[in-house]
Amino acid sequence: MTAPTEFQVFQEIAKRISNWGRWGDDDEIGTLNLVTEDVVRAAAACVRSGKRFELAVELRQQGIQTGIIPGRVNPLHTMVAINWAMFGEDAVATSDDAATLGLQAATHWDGLGHVSHGGRLYNGHSADSITPHEGATRCGIEKTPPLVTRGVLLDVARAQGVERLPGDAAIGPRELDAAEELAGVEVRPGDALLVRTGQMAHYLAGDREAYGFPSPGFSIHAPEWFHARDVAAVANDTLTFEVFPPEVEGLFLPVHLLDLVEMGMLQGQNWNLEQLAADCAEDGQYDFLLTAPPEPFTGGTGAPVAPIAVK
Amino acid sequence: MTAPTEFQVFQEIAKRISNWGRWGDDDEIGTLNLVTEDVVRAAAACVRSGKRFELAVELRQQGIQTGIIPGRVNPLHTMVAINWAMFGEDAVATSDDAATLGLQAATHWDGLGHVSHGGRLYNGHSADSITPHEGATRCGIEKTPPLVTRGVLLDVARAQGVERLPGDAAIGPRELDAAEELAGVEVRPGDALLVRTGQMAHYLAGDREAYGFPSPGFSIHAPEWFHARDVAAVANDTLTFEVFPPEVEGLFLPVHLLDLVEMGMLQGQNWNLEQLAADCAEDGQYDFLLTAPPEPFTGGTGAPVAPIAVK
Amino acid sequence: MTAPTEFQVFQEIAKRISNWGRWGDDDEIGTLNLVTEDVVRAAAACVRSGKRFELAVELRQQGIQTGIIPGRVNPLHTMVAINWAMFGEDAVATSDDAATLGLQAATHWDGLGHVSHGGRLYNGHSADSITPHEGATRCGIEKTPPLVTRGVLLDVARAQGVERLPGDAAIGPRELDAAEELAGVEVRPGDALLVRTGQMAHYLAGDREAYGFPSPGFSIHAPEWFHARDVAAVANDTLTFEVFPPEVEGLFLPVHLLDLVEMGMLQGQNWNLEQLAADCAEDGQYDFLLTAPPEPFTGGTGAPVAPIAVK
Amino acid sequence: MTAPTEFQVFQEIAKRISNWGRWGDDDEIGTLNLVTEDVVRAAAACVRSGKRFELAVELRQQGIQTGIIPGRVNPLHTMVAINWAMFGEDAVATSDDAATLGLQAATHWDGLGHVSHGGRLYNGHSADSITPHEGATRCGIEKTPPLVTRGVLLDVARAQGVERLPGDAAIGPRELDAAEELAGVEVRPGDALLVRTGQMAHYLAGDREAYGFPSPGFSIHAPEWFHARDVAAVANDTLTFEVFPPEVEGLFLPVHLLDLVEMGMLQGQNWNLEQLAADCAEDGQYDFLLTAPPEPFTGGTGAPVAPIAVK
Repeated sequence: MTAPTEFQVFQEIAKRISNWGRWGDDDEIGTLNLVTEDVVRAAAACVRSGKRFELAVELRQQGIQTGIIPGRVNPLHTMVAINWAMFGEDAVATSDDAATLGLQAATHWDGLGHVSHGGRLYNGHSADSITPHEGATRCGIEKTPPLVTRGVLLDVARAQGVERLPGDAAIGPRELDAAEELAGVEVRPGDALLVRTGQMAHYLAGDREAYGFPSPGFSIHAPEWFHARDVAAVANDTLTFEVFPPEVEGLFLPVHLLDLVEMGMLQGQNWNLEQLAADCAEDGQYDFLLTAPPEPFTGGTGAPVAPIAVK
Repeated sequence: MTAPTEFQVFQEIAKRISNWGRWGDDDEIGTLNLVTEDVVRAAAACVRSGKRFELAVELRQQGIQTGIIPGRVNPLHTMVAINWAMFGEDAVATSDDAATLGLQAATHWDGLGHVSHGGRLYNGHSADSITPHEGATRCGIEKTPPLVTRGVLLDVARAQGVERLPGDAAIGPRELDAAEELAGVEVRPGDALLVRTGQMAHYLAGDREAYGFPSPGFSIHAPEWFHARDVAAVANDTLTFEVFPPEVEGLFLPVHLLDLVEMGMLQGQNWNLEQLAADCAEDGQYDFLLTAPPEPFTGGTGAPVAPIAVK
Repeated sequence: MTAPTEFQVFQEIAKRISNWGRWGDDDEIGTLNLVTEDVVRAAAACVRSGKRFELAVELRQQGIQTGIIPGRVNPLHTMVAINWAMFGEDAVATSDDAATLGLQAATHWDGLGHVSHGGRLYNGHSADSITPHEGATRCGIEKTPPLVTRGVLLDVARAQGVERLPGDAAIGPRELDAAEELAGVEVRPGDALLVRTGQMAHYLAGDREAYGFPSPGFSIHAPEWFHARDVAAVANDTLTFEVFPPEVEGLFLPVHLLDLVEMGMLQGQNWNLEQLAADCAEDGQYDFLLTAPPEPFTGGTGAPVAPIAVK
Repeated sequence: MTAPTEFQVFQEIAKRISNWGRWGDDDEIGTLNLVTEDVVRAAAACVRSGKRFELAVELRQQGIQTGIIPGRVNPLHTMVAINWAMFGEDAVATSDDAATLGLQAATHWDGLGHVSHGGRLYNGHSADSITPHEGATRCGIEKTPPLVTRGVLLDVARAQGVERLPGDAAIGPRELDAAEELAGVEVRPGDALLVRTGQMAHYLAGDREAYGFPSPGFSIHAPEWFHARDVAAVANDTLTFEVFPPEVEGLFLPVHLLDLVEMGMLQGQNWNLEQLAADCAEDGQYDFLLTAPPEPFTGGTGAPVAPIAVK
């Protein structure tokens, strides 16, 4: 009898963690169903000092994108009026701006419509429900319920004793366990996990190419860990979310498939966890109230978000 | 001796409520300085039931803008990839989107750079600090600290016994007092006020023209009320924020000038307060934790926001 | 024996005028194959006085679109730099602009990828060859050969003795014959026809709604007239190109189908023929050199064009 | 007595070639005034074979811009509808697109509003006439008269016996004389000159960085040569138009100043002259009818153009 191939392992995981049908056949929000009012009250109870942390990077032309993902353009911010004395020279003058941006160009959530497999989105919704004209008519990002829950920082880099994980580090159950132990917090149903690799330091230092890839990120075994704990959402501080180049040759974005299609769980990318992590290391509090509502673009398959952690 | 003209009254208010220099000559965030850690802890203490309310309208092509504000375009959402099998037919397929939008087209904050008067922004910063190339180099929206505080709903329409204020209703101290009394909450320093006129019902019913104007909104006497209580920010459910056409003939956007330039206080427009207001009327709790971080466009004079109220 | 229904008539026309296979199975440019070097030389021979006419309307925010065609947005022109002294105050200062626009928002060509029928584009190319990621990979507008040919103005309004055709006027062979006679020019293979209805006067007078529809335009019998003469392209001065509301109830955009899918012939819309027509009426010369290259957006299904007529 | 410095030389040239006031104080089109009806007739007389050449590069995301010119973004082409059966499954289905682009991102004309010096545009118009709200209210690109004239290819690279000029080659009178002699055509008032350096080969080979700079281009002495012959416009096949890095240390974009501000002459950049040049070398005909109308963006300081040469 032979050992299963990595691909067979992956397929087994996919079966075990599927949430299709769990919240009804019409469900379009997946694991966000796990954020109950109890969870929200517990999240509020995490607020002790009143410290707040912004987790988004700025939206700007010299942003994260380097051109390797077609069409995912950095924000172009333009002024359509500057000190415009529309009501005469003595009155107030107004300034106004417009922007063009890839919705997943900077700090964002991947919506459940972001990936499909075999013609199916999460919960079996047809991939054809996404059209150029209307965007995602099923699982659109605008259907996200108000996203506030308990957040837990899993500082994998610190738990491994490094400032930044190497580019080929695949984060699996062992690394998540270690980070949970460092945090001193038990991950619970409905939590949002913020998983720090340290990769963001490249971007903050101005090196977009190094930030892009090779990149540490999740292993195909991480989703099973998320599923076992019934977390509501997971974000990290990388472009690719999962380890890239991929662990298993020829198996591209397997974690995207497991998280988004099978589990119906939002994925956050390009989150800046540096300041939050430094503070958690200092005061030892790794749980907090997290708010992270995606901008409600109708039919969006993802959206920018300006998350805040409150301790 | 004659009574002062309305214009003189306005000028006197401007003098009395100015916050220039109050937080130092370099300050660029104004009344958000009032949101202390104590305020944040008190905000968290408002979370009792765990109920959550999304206050943004959807970002979409058939949105709020009708074309009367030049350049403030409704969001154009486009797909740059749909179920794109970039890694082969058996792998996951990805969908990705891009958008062009006026930053103040839908639910948004006016940043402190949004209006100037006499060549000056809040705190005396030069209006010339806004350039086409860089946007607002002073008071840019990306400088907003993580915006979470206690929110208080002042349901002026309900306090007046109507579903929607008439188009010429100017909200002043008397109306604010009545709404505060209805709320049963004492407005405190650092609070964000959400002031409901009911005007949003027009938009939700599909009538964008009626929503635009005539519109109820603040009187020039409202900012003095805000200043006396040292509130951190004010949002309402209208396009124009202040009553429009204006109260005083020839005096355009005077409330914008008082709030943004003199006080340095963020203004929120096009907030959907309908569900929140219905719930407050039902359970009698008019205070809550509010998170409302603007999307951090570098140099933005305003930005979209997806506010959440948590009770 | 009963008379054929209008729908049967339409189907018969479709069969008769099909150009599928005429220029090979791989052809992607249709009737532009008819513009030979002989035709171009004859076009140049039309230049007698040296008079020139611009036929495009300006690209601007207050343009032709009213919002009824989803996603076809008027141009948003923004400045990304104004007098920017990037090299110091003594050097030149630069200004630079960016724009977002629907490619078919103003004066444009419909490319052969603009419409499909039964899953097929012109010449049987699969409609699936158009993707969100790459646009039209078959029949893309960038494949248009350099578009210069003889133009002929058919001033249908003038030939009918009116300044503007009524909103329900369907232009068929009879009207085209009359306009050709007025022009005193025999339409020949490879010609581009500019057909004037006078509808543009609505737009030029500021009434975008009236311009949109009801609109005079081509009847389903016009394409057969075009085909019999083997013209290379046809443009007019309307939004809808064909009469709208349609002639035959339930048969929408039949002329688009006949022209673009069956014949493979470019259609031009929103062309401003007013000045040219006035001049032709005055000097009696209705033929000219026409240049009208679409902006070569890779994968475009249409594109803006700034046509010039030279007499 | 000492020799004049390079800067003094430049200032003397500026004085000698100024066209301010030449066509009246209100003039906004500069040397395009030189394109008379006689010139246009002579241009038409150049059409002998009927051969046509497209001189624009495609408008696409992977275009010429590399990010070094802030805000000048490559075209983002998106589909807003693909085979959309808006009228039912049996009717035609429509596809439609939208784009965001820097107006000077690809093959374009610099309009006369593109650069200012000392607060002045061409003809003394105030640089303040360009506003974020309206763009260039003087010298806007939409004011360009229908641009058709005689074109002359000056193949400087071929005249110098190379495929591509080296990156530091500054094209002055000597090189222009040699290319004119190679062409066998006398440059005349009202001509548009297309000057080939061969630099475009870098871009066509996929090397955008090498294409950008160092780049051959015009010397500060070239504009005097253009002025002496009263040419109407000049385009070449480079990003920077003039030699870059600049000839004279500390003197940036001096040719832009001389051409646009002093002479009021349109400059064309990123024109693809490769096929045209090969044909001219073969048949020995270097003059042709050129049409090159900029897309008429209201208030544009530049605009994309799809030029055609007809021989």
